[in-house]
Amino acid sequence: MQELPKFSDIELAAKRIKGEAVLTPLLENVKLNALVGGRVFIKAECLQRTGSFKFRGAWNCISKLDPTVNQGGVVAYSSGNHAQGVAAAAQLRGVSALIVMPVDTPEIKTANTKSYGAEIVTYDRATEDRVEIANRHVEKRGAVLVPPFEHADIIAGQGTCGLETANEVLARNVMLDDMLVNCSGGGLTAGVALAFSEKSPKTKVHSVEPEGFDDYARSLRSGVREKNASATGSICDALLTPQPGEMTFAMNKGRLADGYVVSEAEVRRAVRFAFETLKLVVEPGGAVGLAAVLSGKINAKGKNIAIILSGGNVDAGLFAKILTET
Amino acid sequence: MQELPKFSDIELAAKRIKGEAVLTPLLENVKLNALVGGRVFIKAECLQRTGSFKFRGAWNCISKLDPTVNQGGVVAYSSGNHAQGVAAAAQLRGVSALIVMPVDTPEIKTANTKSYGAEIVTYDRATEDRVEIANRHVEKRGAVLVPPFEHADIIAGQGTCGLETANEVLARNVMLDDMLVNCSGGGLTAGVALAFSEKSPKTKVHSVEPEGFDDYARSLRSGVREKNASATGSICDALLTPQPGEMTFAMNKGRLADGYVVSEAEVRRAVRFAFETLKLVVEPGGAVGLAAVLSGKINAKGKNIAIILSGGNVDAGLFAKILTET
Repeated sequence: MQELPKFSDIELAAKRIKGEAVLTPLLENVKLNALVGGRVFIKAECLQRTGSFKFRGAWNCISKLDPTVNQGGVVAYSSGNHAQGVAAAAQLRGVSALIVMPVDTPEIKTANTKSYGAEIVTYDRATEDRVEIANRHVEKRGAVLVPPFEHADIIAGQGTCGLETANEVLARNVMLDDMLVNCSGGGLTAGVALAFSEKSPKTKVHSVEPEGFDDYARSLRSGVREKNASATGSICDALLTPQPGEMTFAMNKGRLADGYVVSEAEVRRAVRFAFETLKLVVEPGGAVGLAAVLSGKINAKGKNIAIILSGGNVDAGLFAKILTET
Repeated sequence: MQELPKFSDIELAAKRIKGEAVLTPLLENVKLNALVGGRVFIKAECLQRTGSFKFRGAWNCISKLDPTVNQGGVVAYSSGNHAQGVAAAAQLRGVSALIVMPVDTPEIKTANTKSYGAEIVTYDRATEDRVEIANRHVEKRGAVLVPPFEHADIIAGQGTCGLETANEVLARNVMLDDMLVNCSGGGLTAGVALAFSEKSPKTKVHSVEPEGFDDYARSLRSGVREKNASATGSICDALLTPQPGEMTFAMNKGRLADGYVVSEAEVRRAVRFAFETLKLVVEPGGAVGLAAVLSGKINAKGKNIAIILSGGNVDAGLFAKILTET
């Protein structure tokens, strides 16, 4: 296992991404606050470059490369948002990128990844091992692997999202009771929890996952890295990692409070709410934290809670269907 | 005609709305900039309280009322966004509100208006006079009329959107070449142009309107207030005012550069672009400035241009249709 990142690595990452990543707004919505009886601070990472928080970690990692030295470029595996982050960061840095993506990736995610000049290799989530495929391409190309979460630079980069949130609420003289983090492999969660352990240690940081893919919630309870029963079968395509990362779990184990788990119906309602009331486009996997608040899974009454709308890369067809179903 | 507002009225309005209105973010998008070859600054007023800029003017006006004195409350006529702004402001101030709205108002706009406790009276855009209806209710209730644009407080309130935009670009050391303002009666345009005349007088301020409802563009050319041929028939339900306001035109006449006019197809493309790339929900009438940029009606090459996404109150059914049509 690599050395785990420290808080100072997040501060360094914040300097690196400045001017390239978007300093996304921390929004509040009067209707949402009234509905839940508390204050909900919304970190709108769907407004981030490439439409999700993933550009933060990707740029923190890839900006260190030297195009004249790293002529093999980068290789990554990703369900779609890390793919776009890596592809955009590689293009910006002037190195090539090959991304291993599931065949059932939403069209918008593959199209965007290609639009940043990356090459795509597809695989089947249920039957193939993406890490093995990626490692084969790394060897063949002499490339640098940019993993989606098991990497100190990636975790520190995603941590800037937590650092910005903590700094912004502190600037508003607000003490956050809870910070909800949409969780898959745990990179964003680990980075945010690390940032909060330094900036706002009394805030409880929670993972939020979709039903059937609650490996993090179960692992936090059992103390060991649990696996999901299935590799596919959720509308939250961004949150289907089979189990917590080794590094991320080592970081999160002692820092996270209970994890929350939301149903698909709750996620769909949250996507609709974001459309109708927040006027933000949020993908299903990006809406699980909002779903936890709207469903009452976390009781927000009288509390200050922050959520991250972690991505907005959703196909028009699915979005239209979610909006119009009753 | 009432006395026209001065720049100092916008500064006063900015103090009044602070803490109640959202200080909406001024966003940039790397893809949009690359596409048009310039820098486009996006004032995201769809993220404003009530989903459009209209809360600014409404609160600037209605916050002055005293519930114990103004027991008749307020009356307004509106195509839907001013309705929501007035209803929310009246609720916040503790006075009643009656709003005269077209029968063909999008469902989301009437539902939201009702959700703020307002009473709604409908009329037919083509055959009835909304001002006459509103005045009748004003008299009956002993209410205060809150017009959508012909009022110094309303114009000054909307001007805060321009003031924030100008202050923010100046803070980023950017000199704006052009400021595009979605235009109906001209209240937002007049307020923004007034703010820019003081804060950034070299920036050209333009009105943007949908085809068939380009009364402001034609009036600016002829020098007199021209009327539209029709009262209905555009997807931009927020921009169908029959002619420029007397006050707004008196303010805008000497301040505005040429007006832009965009087609319905260009508007639909802009709504889709905002969904896919900006991850923002924008209603058709709120997207005309973006449409002017994307269509090349205004050449953005090498320029700094600001646009206002003025509202996001669009019915789910229409939005779904715009997203999925090819």
